[in-house]
Amino acid sequence: MSKAANMPPFDLSEVRAAIEAELSDYPFGSRPAELYEPIRYILSIGGKRMRPILVLLAAQALDDQWYKYLKPAVGLEVFHNFTLMHDDIMDQAPLRRGKPTVHRKWNEHIALLAGDAMLIKTYRFFEDIPDQQYRQAIHMFNRCALEVCEGQQLDMNFEAQTDVSVKAYLEMISLKTAALLGFGLAFGTFLAGGSDPDVRHMEQLGINLGIGFQLKDDLLDVFGDQEKFGKQVGGDIIANKKTYLLLRAIEKAGPAEREILQKWLHKKEFDPIEKVNAIKNIYQKLSIQSDTEKLIDHFHTKAFNELEMMEIKSEKKEFIRVFFEDLLARVS
Amino acid sequence: MSKAANMPPFDLSEVRAAIEAELSDYPFGSRPAELYEPIRYILSIGGKRMRPILVLLAAQALDDQWYKYLKPAVGLEVFHNFTLMHDDIMDQAPLRRGKPTVHRKWNEHIALLAGDAMLIKTYRFFEDIPDQQYRQAIHMFNRCALEVCEGQQLDMNFEAQTDVSVKAYLEMISLKTAALLGFGLAFGTFLAGGSDPDVRHMEQLGINLGIGFQLKDDLLDVFGDQEKFGKQVGGDIIANKKTYLLLRAIEKAGPAEREILQKWLHKKEFDPIEKVNAIKNIYQKLSIQSDTEKLIDHFHTKAFNELEMMEIKSEKKEFIRVFFEDLLARVS
Repeated sequence: MSKAANMPPFDLSEVRAAIEAELSDYPFGSRPAELYEPIRYILSIGGKRMRPILVLLAAQALDDQWYKYLKPAVGLEVFHNFTLMHDDIMDQAPLRRGKPTVHRKWNEHIALLAGDAMLIKTYRFFEDIPDQQYRQAIHMFNRCALEVCEGQQLDMNFEAQTDVSVKAYLEMISLKTAALLGFGLAFGTFLAGGSDPDVRHMEQLGINLGIGFQLKDDLLDVFGDQEKFGKQVGGDIIANKKTYLLLRAIEKAGPAEREILQKWLHKKEFDPIEKVNAIKNIYQKLSIQSDTEKLIDHFHTKAFNELEMMEIKSEKKEFIRVFFEDLLARVS
Repeated sequence: MSKAANMPPFDLSEVRAAIEAELSDYPFGSRPAELYEPIRYILSIGGKRMRPILVLLAAQALDDQWYKYLKPAVGLEVFHNFTLMHDDIMDQAPLRRGKPTVHRKWNEHIALLAGDAMLIKTYRFFEDIPDQQYRQAIHMFNRCALEVCEGQQLDMNFEAQTDVSVKAYLEMISLKTAALLGFGLAFGTFLAGGSDPDVRHMEQLGINLGIGFQLKDDLLDVFGDQEKFGKQVGGDIIANKKTYLLLRAIEKAGPAEREILQKWLHKKEFDPIEKVNAIKNIYQKLSIQSDTEKLIDHFHTKAFNELEMMEIKSEKKEFIRVFFEDLLARVS
């Protein structure tokens, strides 16, 4: 806390440094090493620390001393990494942020148990929340944490389902991804003493932005610049991943396009580049890129409307709006 | 609660019925079914409900209205079944209480995620604990839940280790099994308004009894009556499980017995009955049965000493002592 007291108002690189310090200083435990080393490992291999940043961004709108909320904010990063550790087992992912996943570096059982311990540790990060807020904070978190599980299960269900609707997909991403971003903003507002309506507006702001982020991610997988985003373009297409783009294309396709889509979706052996080009071609015919962009705009507009409705000072609204516009510009 | 208000003081079958009702009435959730069905399933296939019983047994010593503590008590049963669901994945167990395990009936990913949701649900069961106790209750539970994870990891480590000491084994079972039994008694005492020393005595009572239970389990695997206990006698021996009996035998063995033990431990192909008899023969030579019984007695004595030191009414101590003596008589 002595370092924190000298911190500037809310500078992103300072905030990130404070989050990193809080994470690396936290005594997760040492024995047995097989339980606690994987926790330190996954937290050390990077990440944008978006969830604690959202908590602190919301808190600073009500309390200049945003660093007072570092510990519960960092709890959300621990929770997020718990979900990654378990999701990576379920997705059989070999890499996370360019490094071996925990279940590959150790094994699946260690990743399972270390994940369980991280979920419990999350609640430890919340143990210093003041008395008058503690029960409500845990209640809010419990609800969000269950939504994240529900979203992950829906996502797993979709893999085997052939009739996923756009509506069902949007519900899934709003639970799996957006709920925690909404909670982050709501949590920071709540902890810093925001009104109940402001807590709800902030939650909706985060949920709508979160859905927008995921749709952007889906879009960039197909229409993004490979150099710039460091991911293989068309990865989702190759894997038949049920993204908004694919589900929207299935929805809009006439008989001819539907036949081509189904052919590629069922092909077991194919040239990846040929498949990506064929599906991309259908997306272009059906104006899927512009549909996706319109939908992203729709969620951004909803998000910023929520911000406008808040009771916080107008310069704070402006600060948050600019913060998100910068963020959105960087991922477009 | 209307049913509960008519309940007799503390009759085990009534208590069990109240626990079952609380569990089956709880709205775990319905969508997605793949997340919530496995939770209802594992909770429906039975179990002795020992952990909630311990919470309520401790609570009734201070408050006749033990049923006021049903909800947090049942939370411990949910937590216990979360650990079983994840342990069964790690142990690749096909059956639990004679029924298919969740990861066999559904799959490992569903068992992983439903387990995560059960851990979060545990915290939901604690949400109604009164304000003045809530923070401390969650703090106590978080500590215990991490100990259970540590114990499970130590148990997994032991599978690959060749030099496990009796001391390390006792530490492992005190974390993996006994900590939650100790917490159950401490939790009930705490919730019903017991003094801090009484909370600690109850915790130690539960830990010592819990270690005793596990040692008894180890003993019955080798020297139990197959008809009576419904388990294959010698299962631990066949699987080279590092029980107290084996570790104590390795500790006491002279060169000749050590050679025989090592031969059987390393044999890949063998007649199970021959192996069980050979190891049992060494246990008899080294008086392992009587060593184990002495150690069980030692932990029982420690447990009942803790009970004597408590501030609760002497008739309540007597009630608890008789309760545990009955319980111990039934498993011996």
